[in-house]
Amino acid sequence: MVAQSLPAKKWRLQDDFSLESGATLPGLEIAYETWGRLSPEGDNVVVILHALSGSSHAFSSEENPEPGWWEGLWDEGAPLRSGKYHIICANSIGGCYGTTGPSSINPDTGAPYAADFPQVTLRDMIEAQRLFLAGLGIDKPVTLLGGSMGGMLILHWMCEHPEEVGRAICLATPPRSEGFTIALRSIQRDAILSDPRYRQGRYSEEEFPEDGLSLARKIGMITYRSPAEFNQRFGRDVKDPRNHFSEGLYEVQSYLDHQGKKFVARFDPNTYLYFSRAMDLFDISDGHDSVAAPFSSCPAKVLLLAINSDFLVPPAHMSELHEALAEAGVDVSLHVMDSIHGHDAFLLEADQINAHLTCFLQSA
Amino acid sequence: MVAQSLPAKKWRLQDDFSLESGATLPGLEIAYETWGRLSPEGDNVVVILHALSGSSHAFSSEENPEPGWWEGLWDEGAPLRSGKYHIICANSIGGCYGTTGPSSINPDTGAPYAADFPQVTLRDMIEAQRLFLAGLGIDKPVTLLGGSMGGMLILHWMCEHPEEVGRAICLATPPRSEGFTIALRSIQRDAILSDPRYRQGRYSEEEFPEDGLSLARKIGMITYRSPAEFNQRFGRDVKDPRNHFSEGLYEVQSYLDHQGKKFVARFDPNTYLYFSRAMDLFDISDGHDSVAAPFSSCPAKVLLLAINSDFLVPPAHMSELHEALAEAGVDVSLHVMDSIHGHDAFLLEADQINAHLTCFLQSA
Repeated sequence: MVAQSLPAKKWRLQDDFSLESGATLPGLEIAYETWGRLSPEGDNVVVILHALSGSSHAFSSEENPEPGWWEGLWDEGAPLRSGKYHIICANSIGGCYGTTGPSSINPDTGAPYAADFPQVTLRDMIEAQRLFLAGLGIDKPVTLLGGSMGGMLILHWMCEHPEEVGRAICLATPPRSEGFTIALRSIQRDAILSDPRYRQGRYSEEEFPEDGLSLARKIGMITYRSPAEFNQRFGRDVKDPRNHFSEGLYEVQSYLDHQGKKFVARFDPNTYLYFSRAMDLFDISDGHDSVAAPFSSCPAKVLLLAINSDFLVPPAHMSELHEALAEAGVDVSLHVMDSIHGHDAFLLEADQINAHLTCFLQSA
Repeated sequence: MVAQSLPAKKWRLQDDFSLESGATLPGLEIAYETWGRLSPEGDNVVVILHALSGSSHAFSSEENPEPGWWEGLWDEGAPLRSGKYHIICANSIGGCYGTTGPSSINPDTGAPYAADFPQVTLRDMIEAQRLFLAGLGIDKPVTLLGGSMGGMLILHWMCEHPEEVGRAICLATPPRSEGFTIALRSIQRDAILSDPRYRQGRYSEEEFPEDGLSLARKIGMITYRSPAEFNQRFGRDVKDPRNHFSEGLYEVQSYLDHQGKKFVARFDPNTYLYFSRAMDLFDISDGHDSVAAPFSSCPAKVLLLAINSDFLVPPAHMSELHEALAEAGVDVSLHVMDSIHGHDAFLLEADQINAHLTCFLQSA
């Protein structure tokens, strides 16, 4: 599949949009969804920032009753479902769920941008979100909520437009990408780039780099969960003992195959490459002397949620962020969630997250 | 490259060799190297068992002065170089360094076996080693030394022919393969199998699945080292800042590319698949009630060396093995080495290993 079409609303920017790289996009289209109503004061906005594989569809809604990727935060009784908030989630630029990205049509050529799409950065994504929020008439400080890439986006927003962020909740978010995560992401991109059907990004639905995208997802899945979870859930379970000496013997292989296939049916390889590179480029202290420095004028109240089994963003990396924010004078707290699910606990441990959100949103 | 030719000695079995799968190989050729002299009593033999990517060339020698894959254990002053030992290292069956494997010629067809080579198991590898040692006239208990797959082989040998093992040193060796490591290895095989040039194993030197083998090696390399090492060694170092928004920006990517290319020049994709599957099949307690049970009549003195940063074989897995051996009444000790190098510390931390070997070999 190349570009998904969700029943999302569209916001359009007619002006040129300048990117950090110096490139320009001739306008933007941003796909978004909302839940709840804007208060008369316009001060109850919660903006959800999605991660690598996300979309605007964080929660189910009347327009789209399919469960969203963060549906557990929309369960009955969840703090975000209290009716107090106007929640907004937009697909990031570079995405494949309705927002301008590599699968969008390049007006200059009438064909998809594909690999000619300029490399977007997390800062670019935030600037697009800001224009979009302004376009909706949101002019009061907002609450930002996101995990992984979503959390990285929040940190940029806090640093560069501190007055716009009232509260921020970052889950599984490091202060920078480093050798190990860059290595892991780069081999996922290798898997796509070395698939002959990738064809420099000019694939079609008929000739699609599904092997590469599937393998990228499988590599990703292994890093999103914990070794303990893989061992506990799959152990040495076999699919069919008669195939004892053949490839594909183990249940865990079927699980990964299934994850790969599901992803191929819903995601765009070029978006994967662009988002993955954007995360590699992430370093919140870039251009500063310390991680604390860019947060020095940040009035937001911040909640950091780490996961004890997170292998991509170990709690030590969130502690570094926590110490830097505290040093910068930010009102920040860090909690380490107990979960076997590794990095993906930021999506899966809804009960724990809801409990933390309840306290945090009440106290602020 | 398809099959390597090292200046190794060859031992040949003319008889059929039966495999655990029920398949039969019409004879065997085993490539091996030796260092030091057999004592008149024939009781000073050390057998080195190599890991996934190894060969018979553990150490340099007059015949082949190239450094071996375990050269640090052959440094001046190293216990194995004391002149006391007759050291033997053979390439395992299924290998690509001179021993019968998928790149060998199938006498029935006159062409390489390729993917028609029967799946070998670690037990098969040990049975071939035993025939080979008997062929050399070795009939006293030996000292076995190996890490990773080499250590798994040692455990099988101890369980199935306990009277033949006098001493055993296993580095970075788990009691079984589980969901997580099976997952990691299976995606490495996916990388090879999904390369169109793999052609069901019937590739040639001209049409070689180098992308797949390179990616498999890169995935492997990331799991062989520790996150801390990647972060400390590469951090966010860039190769050329002018390519800021391009693919391949980071030094760690160049490092991985280099590792992939080096491996493609020296290893056979089919051997990779066969060895990788053989490790998946490894479970020392298979057919027993406990990990301890198969070791109940094992007279060997055993040294287990774990690595505190080993992500594939965490110290907890070696502790499980240690407890099982102790429960079975085996004279066993476990030491956890301190290293940033992760699993590969079993190859790299020669000083620590030599120190442990010195004590262990003296005391036994």
